[in-house]
Amino acid sequence: MSKIIIHEVGPRDGLQAEKQTVPTDKKLEWIRSLAATGIDIIQVGSFVHREKMPQMADTDELVRALRNEKHGAIFSGLVLNEKGLERGLACGVQMFCLGVSASETHSRKNTGMGTDEALARIVATAKEAVAAGAIVQVSVQSAFGCGFEGPIPHERVLTMVRTYLEAGLTNISLADTAGHAHPDQVRRLFGDILRLAPGIQCTCHFHDTYGLGMANVYAALESGVVSFETSFAGLGGCPFTKVAAGNVATEDLVHALRRSDLRKEVDLSALVAVARDVAVYFGREMPGRVHKSGFLSY
Amino acid sequence: MSKIIIHEVGPRDGLQAEKQTVPTDKKLEWIRSLAATGIDIIQVGSFVHREKMPQMADTDELVRALRNEKHGAIFSGLVLNEKGLERGLACGVQMFCLGVSASETHSRKNTGMGTDEALARIVATAKEAVAAGAIVQVSVQSAFGCGFEGPIPHERVLTMVRTYLEAGLTNISLADTAGHAHPDQVRRLFGDILRLAPGIQCTCHFHDTYGLGMANVYAALESGVVSFETSFAGLGGCPFTKVAAGNVATEDLVHALRRSDLRKEVDLSALVAVARDVAVYFGREMPGRVHKSGFLSY
Repeated sequence: MSKIIIHEVGPRDGLQAEKQTVPTDKKLEWIRSLAATGIDIIQVGSFVHREKMPQMADTDELVRALRNEKHGAIFSGLVLNEKGLERGLACGVQMFCLGVSASETHSRKNTGMGTDEALARIVATAKEAVAAGAIVQVSVQSAFGCGFEGPIPHERVLTMVRTYLEAGLTNISLADTAGHAHPDQVRRLFGDILRLAPGIQCTCHFHDTYGLGMANVYAALESGVVSFETSFAGLGGCPFTKVAAGNVATEDLVHALRRSDLRKEVDLSALVAVARDVAVYFGREMPGRVHKSGFLSY
Repeated sequence: MSKIIIHEVGPRDGLQAEKQTVPTDKKLEWIRSLAATGIDIIQVGSFVHREKMPQMADTDELVRALRNEKHGAIFSGLVLNEKGLERGLACGVQMFCLGVSASETHSRKNTGMGTDEALARIVATAKEAVAAGAIVQVSVQSAFGCGFEGPIPHERVLTMVRTYLEAGLTNISLADTAGHAHPDQVRRLFGDILRLAPGIQCTCHFHDTYGLGMANVYAALESGVVSFETSFAGLGGCPFTKVAAGNVATEDLVHALRRSDLRKEVDLSALVAVARDVAVYFGREMPGRVHKSGFLSY
Protein backbone atom coordinates (compact mmCIF):
# COMPACT_ATOMS: atom_id res chain seq x y z
CA MET A 1 0.00 0.00 0.00
CA SER A 2 1.22 3.51 -0.77
CA LYS A 3 2.04 5.78 2.10
CA ILE A 4 -0.69 8.31 2.85
CA ILE A 5 0.67 11.81 2.25
CA ILE A 6 -0.35 14.62 4.60
CA HIS A 7 -0.23 18.09 3.11
CA GLU A 8 -0.76 20.77 5.76
CA VAL A 9 -2.42 23.79 4.14
CA GLY A 10 -3.35 25.75 7.28
CA PRO A 11 -0.63 28.42 6.93
CA ARG A 12 -2.17 29.24 3.52
CA ASP A 13 -5.84 28.20 3.40
CA GLY A 14 -6.30 28.83 7.10
CA LEU A 15 -4.45 32.08 7.63
CA GLN A 16 -5.66 33.73 4.41
CA ALA A 17 -9.19 33.43 5.77
CA GLU A 18 -8.38 35.24 9.01
CA LYS A 19 -9.04 38.96 9.28
CA GLN A 20 -5.89 39.58 11.27
CA THR A 21 -2.50 39.09 9.67
CA VAL A 22 -0.32 36.75 11.69
CA PRO A 23 3.24 38.09 12.11
CA THR A 24 5.94 36.25 10.17
CA ASP A 25 7.69 35.07 13.34
CA LYS A 26 4.53 33.43 14.65
CA LYS A 27 3.95 31.74 11.29
CA LEU A 28 7.53 30.46 11.32
CA GLU A 29 7.07 29.09 14.82
CA TRP A 30 3.94 27.17 13.75
CA ILE A 31 5.42 25.96 10.45
CA ARG A 32 8.62 24.75 12.11
CA SER A 33 6.61 22.93 14.78
CA LEU A 34 4.41 21.34 12.12
CA ALA A 35 7.43 20.34 10.03
CA ALA A 36 8.94 18.58 13.06
CA THR A 37 5.90 16.29 13.50
CA GLY A 38 6.70 14.11 10.50
CA ILE A 39 3.98 15.32 8.13
CA ASP A 40 5.04 15.45 4.50
CA ILE A 41 4.25 18.81 2.92
CA ILE A 42 3.44 22.24 4.34
CA GLN A 43 1.88 24.97 2.23
CA VAL A 44 3.49 28.07 3.68
CA GLY A 45 1.46 30.66 1.79
CA SER A 46 0.21 31.99 -1.48
CA PHE A 47 2.11 34.04 -4.06
CA VAL A 48 -0.84 36.33 -4.52
CA HIS A 49 -0.72 40.10 -4.96
CA ARG A 50 0.38 41.51 -1.58
CA GLU A 51 -2.23 44.25 -1.52
CA LYS A 52 -5.04 41.88 -2.44
CA MET A 53 -4.23 39.59 0.45
CA PRO A 54 -1.94 41.16 3.04
CA GLN A 55 -2.16 38.02 5.21
CA MET A 56 -0.04 36.28 2.54
CA ALA A 57 2.40 39.12 1.89
CA ASP A 58 5.30 37.35 3.61
CA THR A 59 5.15 34.07 1.66
CA ASP A 60 8.50 34.71 -0.08
CA GLU A 61 10.10 35.68 3.21
CA LEU A 62 8.81 32.49 4.86
CA VAL A 63 10.24 30.32 2.11
CA ARG A 64 13.59 32.10 2.30
CA ALA A 65 13.72 31.59 6.07
CA LEU A 66 12.83 27.91 5.86
CA ARG A 67 14.55 26.63 2.73
CA ASN A 68 18.04 26.34 4.19
CA GLU A 69 16.94 24.79 7.44
CA LYS A 70 16.93 21.03 7.86
CA HIS A 71 13.32 19.85 7.76
CA GLY A 72 11.80 16.54 6.78
CA ALA A 73 8.84 18.30 5.17
CA ILE A 74 8.57 19.74 1.68
CA PHE A 75 7.40 23.36 1.53
CA SER A 76 4.78 24.26 -1.04
CA GLY A 77 3.24 27.53 -2.18
CA LEU A 78 0.04 28.37 -4.00
CA VAL A 79 0.47 30.14 -7.31
CA LEU A 80 -2.37 31.91 -9.14
CA ASN A 81 -0.53 33.22 -12.19
CA GLU A 82 2.75 33.72 -14.05
CA LYS A 83 3.84 36.50 -11.69
CA GLY A 84 3.32 34.21 -8.70
CA LEU A 85 5.43 31.51 -10.34
CA GLU A 86 8.25 34.00 -10.84
CA ARG A 87 8.12 34.95 -7.17
CA GLY A 88 8.03 31.30 -6.13
CA LEU A 89 11.01 30.39 -8.31
CA ALA A 90 12.92 33.41 -7.07
CA CYS A 91 12.53 32.50 -3.41
CA GLY A 92 13.10 28.80 -4.05
CA VAL A 93 9.88 27.08 -2.98
CA GLN A 94 10.08 23.31 -3.62
CA MET A 95 6.53 22.59 -4.69
CA PHE A 96 3.97 24.63 -6.61
CA CYS A 97 0.23 24.19 -6.23
CA LEU A 98 -1.86 25.69 -9.01
CA GLY A 99 -5.59 25.46 -9.48
CA VAL A 100 -8.59 26.46 -11.53
CA SER A 101 -12.18 26.61 -10.32
CA ALA A 102 -14.70 24.41 -12.11
CA SER A 103 -17.27 27.07 -11.27
CA GLU A 104 -17.39 29.87 -13.82
CA THR A 105 -18.63 32.34 -11.19
CA HIS A 106 -16.09 31.33 -8.55
CA SER A 107 -13.32 31.45 -11.16
CA ARG A 108 -14.27 34.98 -12.23
CA LYS A 109 -14.50 36.23 -8.64
CA ASN A 110 -11.17 34.60 -7.82
CA THR A 111 -9.15 35.45 -10.92
CA GLY A 112 -11.21 37.69 -13.21
CA MET A 113 -11.20 34.92 -15.82
CA GLY A 114 -13.69 32.22 -16.73
CA THR A 115 -12.77 28.57 -16.26
CA ASP A 116 -11.50 27.91 -19.82
CA GLU A 117 -9.21 30.92 -19.95
CA ALA A 118 -7.95 30.30 -16.41
CA LEU A 119 -7.28 26.65 -17.26
CA ALA A 120 -5.20 27.51 -20.35
CA ARG A 121 -3.13 29.98 -18.35
CA ILE A 122 -2.64 27.69 -15.37
CA VAL A 123 -1.60 24.76 -17.58
CA ALA A 124 1.01 26.96 -19.25
CA THR A 125 2.28 28.19 -15.88
CA ALA A 126 2.33 24.65 -14.45
CA LYS A 127 4.39 23.43 -17.41
CA GLU A 128 6.90 26.19 -16.77
CA ALA A 129 7.12 25.15 -13.14
CA VAL A 130 7.76 21.55 -14.20
CA ALA A 131 10.41 22.74 -16.65
CA ALA A 132 12.06 24.63 -13.79
CA GLY A 133 12.42 21.33 -11.91
CA ALA A 134 9.83 21.96 -9.18
CA ILE A 135 7.23 19.51 -7.85
CA VAL A 136 3.89 20.57 -9.31
CA GLN A 137 0.35 19.80 -8.21
CA VAL A 138 -2.65 21.05 -10.17
CA SER A 139 -6.14 21.20 -8.78
CA VAL A 140 -9.75 21.60 -9.69
CA GLN A 141 -11.35 23.95 -7.18
CA SER A 142 -15.08 23.82 -6.41
CA ALA A 143 -14.95 20.35 -7.94
CA PHE A 144 -17.92 19.06 -5.94
CA GLY A 145 -20.24 22.05 -5.93
CA CYS A 146 -20.14 25.82 -5.64
CA GLY A 147 -21.66 28.26 -3.18
CA PHE A 148 -22.68 30.50 -6.10
CA GLU A 149 -23.62 28.01 -8.79
CA GLY A 150 -24.72 24.99 -6.79
CA PRO A 151 -24.04 21.71 -8.58
CA ILE A 152 -20.93 21.38 -10.74
CA PRO A 153 -21.30 18.87 -13.57
CA HIS A 154 -19.20 15.75 -13.04
CA GLU A 155 -18.22 15.83 -16.73
CA ARG A 156 -16.86 19.39 -16.46
CA VAL A 157 -14.43 18.30 -13.75
CA LEU A 158 -13.36 15.26 -15.76
CA THR A 159 -12.73 17.45 -18.82
CA MET A 160 -10.49 19.72 -16.77
CA VAL A 161 -8.63 16.71 -15.40
CA ARG A 162 -8.16 15.40 -18.96
CA THR A 163 -6.62 18.74 -19.92
CA TYR A 164 -4.15 18.43 -17.05
CA LEU A 165 -3.31 14.85 -17.97
CA GLU A 166 -2.76 15.74 -21.64
CA ALA A 167 -0.30 18.40 -20.48
CA GLY A 168 1.61 15.76 -18.54
CA LEU A 169 0.40 17.03 -15.17
CA THR A 170 -0.37 13.90 -13.16
CA ASN A 171 -0.33 15.14 -9.58
CA ILE A 172 -3.98 16.13 -9.35
CA SER A 173 -6.03 17.51 -6.49
CA LEU A 174 -9.78 17.97 -6.26
CA ALA A 175 -10.80 20.68 -3.81
CA ASP A 176 -14.22 20.83 -2.23
CA THR A 177 -13.90 24.57 -1.76
CA ALA A 178 -17.43 25.13 -0.48
CA GLY A 179 -17.88 21.83 1.33
CA HIS A 180 -20.64 20.44 -0.93
CA ALA A 181 -19.08 17.01 -1.47
CA HIS A 182 -20.68 13.84 -0.19
CA PRO A 183 -19.09 10.39 -0.06
CA ASP A 184 -20.82 8.81 -3.08
CA GLN A 185 -19.82 11.77 -5.23
CA VAL A 186 -16.24 11.56 -3.98
CA ARG A 187 -16.09 7.87 -4.90
CA ARG A 188 -17.60 8.48 -8.36
CA LEU A 189 -15.31 11.36 -9.26
CA PHE A 190 -12.02 9.91 -8.02
CA GLY A 191 -13.06 6.50 -9.34
CA ASP A 192 -13.50 7.97 -12.84
CA ILE A 193 -10.22 9.86 -12.65
CA LEU A 194 -8.25 6.83 -11.55
CA ARG A 195 -9.85 4.75 -14.31
CA LEU A 196 -8.80 7.47 -16.75
CA ALA A 197 -5.24 7.49 -15.46
CA PRO A 198 -4.51 4.55 -13.17
CA GLY A 199 -1.71 5.06 -10.70
CA ILE A 200 -1.50 8.85 -10.78
CA GLN A 201 -1.22 10.69 -7.48
CA CYS A 202 -4.63 12.01 -6.45
CA THR A 203 -5.06 14.52 -3.66
CA CYS A 204 -8.20 15.77 -1.98
CA HIS A 205 -9.10 18.84 0.02
CA PHE A 206 -12.36 18.86 1.98
CA HIS A 207 -14.04 21.62 3.93
CA ASP A 208 -16.32 20.56 6.75
CA THR A 209 -19.07 23.11 6.05
CA TYR A 210 -21.88 20.56 6.34
CA GLY A 211 -20.17 17.99 8.59
CA LEU A 212 -19.08 15.61 5.84
CA GLY A 213 -15.35 16.38 5.75
CA MET A 214 -14.07 13.22 7.42
CA ALA A 215 -16.67 10.97 5.77
CA ASN A 216 -15.37 12.30 2.45
CA VAL A 217 -11.79 11.59 3.50
CA TYR A 218 -12.69 7.92 4.05
CA ALA A 219 -14.54 7.76 0.73
CA ALA A 220 -11.43 9.21 -0.94
CA LEU A 221 -9.17 6.69 0.83
CA GLU A 222 -11.37 3.87 -0.46
CA SER A 223 -11.19 5.33 -3.97
CA GLY A 224 -7.41 5.26 -4.08
CA VAL A 225 -6.62 8.86 -3.13
CA VAL A 226 -3.22 8.94 -1.43
CA SER A 227 -2.71 12.58 -0.46
CA PHE A 228 -4.78 14.76 1.87
CA GLU A 229 -4.79 18.52 2.30
CA THR A 230 -5.82 19.48 5.83
CA SER A 231 -5.41 22.39 8.25
CA PHE A 232 -4.08 22.39 11.79
CA ALA A 233 -6.95 22.97 14.27
CA GLY A 234 -9.34 22.88 11.30
CA LEU A 235 -8.55 26.45 10.25
CA GLY A 236 -9.75 27.56 6.87
CA GLY A 237 -12.42 28.79 4.57
CA CYS A 238 -11.97 30.37 1.16
CA PRO A 239 -12.60 34.13 1.31
CA PHE A 240 -14.15 34.03 -2.18
CA THR A 241 -16.91 31.53 -1.46
CA LYS A 242 -20.28 32.35 0.03
CA VAL A 243 -20.48 29.94 2.94
CA ALA A 244 -17.27 28.38 4.08
CA ALA A 245 -16.13 26.45 7.09
CA GLY A 246 -12.82 25.05 8.16
CA ASN A 247 -10.85 22.28 6.54
CA VAL A 248 -10.67 18.81 7.97
CA ALA A 249 -8.26 19.23 10.88
CA THR A 250 -4.77 17.79 10.38
CA GLU A 251 -4.61 16.31 13.87
CA ASP A 252 -8.07 14.71 13.41
CA LEU A 253 -6.85 13.12 10.16
CA VAL A 254 -3.62 11.90 11.73
CA HIS A 255 -5.58 10.44 14.65
CA ALA A 256 -7.99 8.71 12.25
CA LEU A 257 -5.14 7.29 10.16
CA ARG A 258 -3.60 5.89 13.33
CA ARG A 259 -6.88 4.31 14.42
CA SER A 260 -7.30 2.82 10.96
CA ASP A 261 -3.70 1.50 10.95
CA LEU A 262 -2.86 3.51 7.86
CA ARG A 263 -0.10 5.72 9.23
CA LYS A 264 1.29 5.74 12.71
CA GLU A 265 4.56 7.60 13.06
CA VAL A 266 3.44 11.26 12.94
CA ASP A 267 3.95 13.02 16.29
CA LEU A 268 0.33 13.57 17.28
CA SER A 269 1.15 15.17 20.65
CA ALA A 270 3.18 17.84 18.90
CA LEU A 271 0.41 18.41 16.33
CA VAL A 272 -2.16 18.80 19.09
CA ALA A 273 0.08 21.28 20.87
CA VAL A 274 0.30 23.48 17.76
CA ALA A 275 -3.47 23.30 17.23
CA ARG A 276 -4.07 24.30 20.85
CA ASP A 277 -1.70 27.22 20.45
CA VAL A 278 -3.63 28.38 17.38
CA ALA A 279 -6.89 28.32 19.35
CA VAL A 280 -5.27 30.38 22.11
CA TYR A 281 -3.76 32.77 19.57
CA PHE A 282 -7.08 33.52 17.86
CA GLY A 283 -8.99 33.32 21.13
CA ARG A 284 -11.88 31.30 19.78
CA GLU A 285 -13.03 27.72 19.54
CA MET A 286 -11.55 25.96 16.53
CA PRO A 287 -13.44 23.31 14.58
CA GLY A 288 -10.98 20.42 15.05
CA ARG A 289 -11.98 17.76 17.58
CA VAL A 290 -8.81 15.99 18.71
CA HIS A 291 -7.02 19.09 20.00
CA LYS A 292 -10.00 19.57 22.34
CA SER A 293 -10.65 15.96 23.36
CA GLY A 294 -7.06 14.72 23.47
CA PHE A 295 -6.26 11.57 21.55
CA LEU A 296 -6.44 7.84 21.96
CA SER A 297 -3.07 6.22 22.27
CA TYR A 298 -4.11 2.58 21.84
CA MET B 1 -33.71 -0.46 -0.14
CA SER B 2 -35.05 -0.15 3.41
CA LYS B 3 -35.99 3.27 4.65
CA ILE B 4 -33.33 4.84 6.87
CA ILE B 5 -34.77 5.34 10.36
CA ILE B 6 -33.86 8.47 12.30
CA HIS B 7 -34.02 8.15 16.06
CA GLU B 8 -33.61 11.51 17.78
CA VAL B 9 -31.99 10.98 21.19
CA GLY B 10 -31.17 14.59 22.07
CA PRO B 11 -33.93 15.03 24.68
CA ARG B 12 -32.36 12.10 26.55
CA ASP B 13 -28.68 11.74 25.66
CA GLY B 14 -28.28 15.47 25.10
CA LEU B 15 -30.22 16.95 27.99
CA GLN B 16 -29.00 14.44 30.59
CA ALA B 17 -25.49 15.71 29.94
CA GLU B 18 -26.41 19.34 30.61
CA LYS B 19 -25.82 20.79 34.07
CA GLN B 20 -29.02 22.79 33.99
CA THR B 21 -32.38 21.05 33.96
CA VAL B 22 -34.54 22.17 31.06
CA PRO B 23 -38.14 22.91 32.13
CA THR B 24 -40.77 20.44 30.96
CA ASP B 25 -42.54 23.02 28.78
CA LYS B 26 -39.36 23.82 26.89
CA LYS B 27 -38.68 20.12 26.36
CA LEU B 28 -42.23 19.65 25.07
CA GLU B 29 -41.79 22.56 22.66
CA TRP B 30 -38.60 21.01 21.24
CA ILE B 31 -40.00 17.46 21.11
CA ARG B 32 -43.20 18.58 19.38
CA SER B 33 -41.19 20.59 16.84
CA LEU B 34 -38.90 17.62 16.21
CA ALA B 35 -41.86 15.24 15.86
CA ALA B 36 -43.37 17.53 13.22
CA THR B 37 -40.30 17.30 10.97
CA GLY B 38 -40.99 13.75 9.84
CA ILE B 39 -38.26 11.95 11.78
CA ASP B 40 -39.26 8.52 13.03
CA ILE B 41 -38.52 8.10 16.73
CA ILE B 42 -37.82 10.54 19.54
CA GLN B 43 -36.29 9.44 22.82
CA VAL B 44 -37.99 11.76 25.28
CA GLY B 45 -36.02 10.81 28.37
CA SER B 46 -34.73 8.15 30.70
CA PHE B 47 -36.64 6.31 33.42
CA VAL B 48 -33.73 6.68 35.78
CA HIS B 49 -33.95 7.46 39.51
CA ARG B 50 -35.14 11.06 39.76
CA GLU B 51 -32.59 12.06 42.39
CA LYS B 52 -29.73 10.49 40.48
CA MET B 53 -30.51 12.50 37.38
CA PRO B 54 -32.88 15.40 38.01
CA GLN B 55 -32.61 16.46 34.35
CA MET B 56 -34.64 13.34 33.49
CA ALA B 57 -37.16 13.55 36.37
CA ASP B 58 -40.04 14.56 34.08
CA THR B 59 -39.78 11.68 31.59
CA ASP B 60 -43.12 10.14 32.68
CA GLU B 61 -44.78 13.55 32.52
CA LEU B 62 -43.44 14.14 29.00
CA VAL B 63 -44.78 10.81 27.78
CA ARG B 64 -48.18 11.47 29.35
CA ALA B 65 -48.36 14.88 27.69
CA LEU B 66 -47.37 13.55 24.28
CA ARG B 67 -49.01 10.14 24.03
CA ASN B 68 -52.52 11.34 23.23
CA GLU B 69 -51.43 13.99 20.75
CA LYS B 70 -51.34 13.21 17.05
CA HIS B 71 -47.69 12.82 16.04
CA GLY B 72 -46.09 10.90 13.22
CA ALA B 73 -43.14 9.97 15.44
CA ILE B 74 -42.84 7.11 17.92
CA PHE B 75 -41.75 8.14 21.42
CA SER B 76 -39.11 6.03 23.14
CA GLY B 77 -37.64 6.02 26.62
CA LEU B 78 -34.42 4.64 28.05
CA VAL B 79 -34.85 2.05 30.78
CA LEU B 80 -32.03 0.93 33.08
CA ASN B 81 -33.85 -1.59 35.24
CA GLU B 82 -37.11 -3.28 36.25
CA LYS B 83 -38.31 -0.20 38.13
CA GLY B 84 -37.80 1.93 35.03
CA LEU B 85 -39.80 -0.52 32.94
CA GLU B 86 -42.69 -0.28 35.41
CA ARG B 87 -42.63 3.51 35.14
CA GLY B 88 -42.47 3.35 31.36
CA LEU B 89 -45.37 0.91 31.12
CA ALA B 90 -47.39 3.02 33.56
CA CYS B 91 -47.01 6.22 31.55
CA GLY B 92 -47.50 4.42 28.23
CA VAL B 93 -44.26 4.96 26.32
CA GLN B 94 -44.35 3.17 22.94
CA MET B 95 -40.77 2.00 22.66
CA PHE B 96 -38.22 0.90 25.25
CA CYS B 97 -34.48 1.20 24.77
CA LEU B 98 -32.37 -0.90 27.12
CA GLY B 99 -28.64 -1.35 27.11
CA VAL B 100 -25.63 -2.90 28.75
CA SER B 101 -22.08 -1.63 28.59
CA ALA B 102 -19.47 -3.95 27.13
CA SER B 103 -16.96 -2.25 29.42
CA GLU B 104 -16.88 -3.79 32.88
CA THR B 105 -15.72 -0.48 34.41
CA HIS B 106 -18.30 1.63 32.58
CA SER B 107 -21.03 -0.88 33.47
CA ARG B 108 -20.15 -0.76 37.18
CA LYS B 109 -20.01 3.05 37.22
CA ASN B 110 -23.31 3.25 35.38
CA THR B 111 -25.31 0.51 37.13
CA GLY B 112 -23.26 -0.90 40.01
CA MET B 113 -23.15 -4.26 38.20
CA GLY B 114 -20.59 -5.92 35.96
CA THR B 115 -21.42 -6.63 32.32
CA ASP B 116 -22.61 -10.24 32.81
CA GLU B 117 -24.98 -9.48 35.67
CA ALA B 118 -26.30 -6.37 33.93
CA LEU B 119 -26.85 -8.32 30.73
CA ALA B 120 -28.89 -11.03 32.48
CA ARG B 121 -31.06 -8.41 34.16
CA ILE B 122 -31.55 -6.31 31.03
CA VAL B 123 -32.47 -9.33 28.92
CA ALA B 124 -35.11 -10.30 31.49
CA THR B 125 -36.47 -6.75 31.57
CA ALA B 126 -36.45 -6.50 27.78
CA LYS B 127 -38.44 -9.75 27.51
CA GLU B 128 -41.03 -8.33 29.89
CA ALA B 129 -41.28 -5.21 27.74
CA VAL B 130 -41.79 -7.36 24.64
CA ALA B 131 -44.45 -9.38 26.51
CA ALA B 132 -46.20 -6.12 27.37
CA GLY B 133 -46.49 -5.36 23.64
CA ALA B 134 -43.96 -2.53 23.41
CA ILE B 135 -41.36 -1.98 20.72
CA VAL B 136 -38.01 -2.95 22.25
CA GLN B 137 -34.46 -2.06 21.24
CA VAL B 138 -31.47 -3.46 23.08
CA SER B 139 -28.00 -2.01 22.87
CA VAL B 140 -24.38 -2.67 23.60
CA GLN B 141 -22.89 0.51 25.05
CA SER B 142 -19.17 1.28 24.76
CA ALA B 143 -19.18 -1.28 21.95
CA PHE B 144 -16.22 0.28 20.13
CA GLY B 145 -13.97 1.28 23.02
CA CYS B 146 -14.16 2.76 26.49
CA GLY B 147 -12.74 5.90 28.08
CA PHE B 148 -11.72 3.86 31.14
CA GLU B 149 -10.69 0.54 29.64
CA GLY B 150 -9.55 1.51 26.17
CA PRO B 151 -10.12 -1.23 23.60
CA ILE B 152 -13.19 -3.46 23.93
CA PRO B 153 -12.70 -6.93 22.43
CA HIS B 154 -14.73 -7.46 19.28
CA GLU B 155 -15.66 -10.97 20.49
CA ARG B 156 -17.10 -9.61 23.74
CA VAL B 157 -19.56 -7.44 21.82
CA LEU B 158 -20.51 -10.34 19.56
CA THR B 159 -21.15 -12.57 22.58
CA MET B 160 -23.49 -9.96 24.06
CA VAL B 161 -25.29 -9.65 20.73
CA ARG B 162 -25.67 -13.45 20.59
CA THR B 163 -27.27 -13.34 24.05
CA TYR B 164 -29.78 -10.77 22.79
CA LEU B 165 -30.52 -12.81 19.68
CA GLU B 166 -31.03 -16.01 21.66
CA ALA B 167 -33.57 -14.13 23.80
CA GLY B 168 -35.44 -13.17 20.61
CA LEU B 169 -34.32 -9.53 20.80
CA THR B 170 -33.50 -8.60 17.21
CA ASN B 171 -33.63 -4.80 17.25
CA ILE B 172 -30.02 -4.20 18.19
CA SER B 173 -28.06 -0.99 18.64
CA LEU B 174 -24.33 -0.55 19.07
CA ALA B 175 -23.42 2.65 20.89
CA ASP B 176 -20.03 4.28 20.59
CA THR B 177 -20.43 5.89 23.99
CA ALA B 178 -16.94 7.36 24.18
CA GLY B 179 -16.45 8.05 20.48
CA HIS B 180 -13.63 5.54 19.91
CA ALA B 181 -15.09 3.90 16.80
CA HIS B 182 -13.43 4.15 13.42
CA PRO B 183 -14.94 3.16 10.08
CA ASP B 184 -13.11 -0.18 9.57
CA GLN B 185 -14.15 -1.29 13.03
CA VAL B 186 -17.76 -0.26 12.38
CA ARG B 187 -17.79 -2.31 9.17
CA ARG B 188 -16.24 -5.35 10.86
CA LEU B 189 -18.59 -5.35 13.84
CA PHE B 190 -21.86 -4.71 12.01
CA GLY B 191 -20.72 -7.02 9.22
CA ASP B 192 -20.25 -9.86 11.71
CA ILE B 193 -23.59 -9.17 13.40
CA LEU B 194 -25.50 -9.12 10.12
CA ARG B 195 -23.80 -12.36 9.05
CA LEU B 196 -24.86 -13.84 12.39
CA ALA B 197 -28.46 -12.70 11.94
CA PRO B 198 -29.14 -11.45 8.41
CA GLY B 199 -32.00 -9.02 8.05
CA ILE B 200 -32.30 -7.90 11.68
CA GLN B 201 -32.69 -4.19 12.39
CA CYS B 202 -29.33 -2.73 13.37
CA THR B 203 -29.01 0.72 14.89
CA CYS B 204 -25.93 2.77 15.61
CA HIS B 205 -25.13 5.66 17.91
CA PHE B 206 -21.91 7.61 17.37
CA HIS B 207 -20.32 10.37 19.38
CA ASP B 208 -18.06 12.75 17.54
CA THR B 209 -15.36 12.97 20.22
CA TYR B 210 -12.50 12.50 17.75
CA GLY B 211 -14.18 13.78 14.60
CA LEU B 212 -15.17 10.39 13.17
CA GLY B 213 -18.92 10.46 13.86
CA MET B 214 -20.16 11.04 10.32
CA ALA B 215 -17.48 8.82 8.75
CA ASN B 216 -18.75 6.05 11.04
CA VAL B 217 -22.34 6.74 9.96
CA TYR B 218 -21.35 6.12 6.33
CA ALA B 219 -19.44 2.97 7.26
CA ALA B 220 -22.56 1.76 9.10
CA LEU B 221 -24.78 2.59 6.11
CA GLU B 222 -22.49 0.54 3.89
CA SER B 223 -22.64 -2.34 6.38
CA GLY B 224 -26.44 -2.54 6.27
CA VAL B 225 -27.32 -0.53 9.38
CA VAL B 226 -30.75 1.04 8.85
CA SER B 227 -31.36 3.09 12.00
CA PHE B 228 -29.37 6.03 13.37
CA GLU B 229 -29.47 7.63 16.79
CA THR B 230 -28.52 11.31 16.61
CA SER B 231 -29.04 14.51 18.62
CA PHE B 232 -30.42 17.83 17.46
CA ALA B 233 -27.62 20.44 17.29
CA GLY B 234 -25.18 17.65 18.17
CA LEU B 235 -26.02 17.76 21.88
CA GLY B 236 -24.79 14.94 24.05
CA GLY B 237 -22.11 13.21 25.98
CA CYS B 238 -22.56 10.45 28.52
CA PRO B 239 -22.00 11.80 32.06
CA PHE B 240 -20.41 8.47 33.09
CA THR B 241 -17.61 8.46 30.55
CA LYS B 242 -14.29 10.20 30.93
CA VAL B 243 -14.07 12.18 27.71
CA ALA B 244 -17.26 12.70 25.79
CA ALA B 245 -18.39 14.93 23.01
CA GLY B 246 -21.69 15.43 21.28
CA ASN B 247 -23.57 12.97 19.14
CA VAL B 248 -23.69 13.23 15.40
CA ALA B 249 -26.16 16.08 14.83
CA THR B 250 -29.60 15.06 13.55
CA GLU B 251 -29.79 17.89 11.05
CA ASP B 252 -26.29 17.04 9.75
CA LEU B 253 -27.41 13.43 9.24
CA VAL B 254 -30.64 14.46 7.52
CA HIS B 255 -28.69 16.81 5.25
CA ALA B 256 -26.21 14.04 4.42
CA LEU B 257 -28.98 11.53 3.68
CA ARG B 258 -30.55 14.08 1.31
CA ARG B 259 -27.26 14.68 -0.46
CA SER B 260 -26.74 10.94 -0.77
CA ASP B 261 -30.30 10.44 -2.10
CA LEU B 262 -31.14 8.11 0.78
CA ARG B 263 -33.98 10.04 2.38
CA LYS B 264 -35.40 13.33 1.28
CA GLU B 265 -38.73 14.16 2.90
CA VAL B 266 -37.70 15.24 6.42
CA ASP B 267 -38.30 18.97 7.01
CA LEU B 268 -34.72 20.16 7.30
CA SER B 269 -35.63 23.84 7.73
CA ALA B 270 -37.69 22.98 10.77
CA LEU B 271 -34.89 20.78 12.18
CA VAL B 272 -32.39 23.58 11.72
CA ALA B 273 -34.72 26.01 13.48
CA VAL B 274 -34.93 23.73 16.54
CA ALA B 275 -31.16 23.26 16.60
CA ARG B 276 -30.63 27.02 16.44
CA ASP B 277 -33.08 27.51 19.28
CA VAL B 278 -31.11 25.00 21.38
CA ALA B 279 -27.89 26.92 20.75
CA VAL B 280 -29.61 30.17 21.81
CA TYR B 281 -31.13 28.47 24.87
CA PHE B 282 -27.81 27.17 26.16
CA GLY B 283 -25.94 30.25 25.00
CA ARG B 284 -22.99 28.40 23.52
CA GLU B 285 -21.74 27.09 20.24
CA MET B 286 -23.14 23.64 19.50
CA PRO B 287 -21.14 20.97 17.63
CA GLY B 288 -23.56 20.46 14.70
CA ARG B 289 -22.52 22.03 11.38
CA VAL B 290 -25.67 22.50 9.28
CA HIS B 291 -27.54 24.66 11.80
CA LYS B 292 -24.61 27.08 11.56
CA SER B 293 -23.90 26.93 7.83
CA GLY B 294 -27.45 26.55 6.56
CA PHE B 295 -28.16 23.71 4.17
CA LEU B 296 -27.89 22.95 0.48
CA SER B 297 -31.24 22.63 -1.19
CA TYR B 298 -30.09 21.15 -4.48
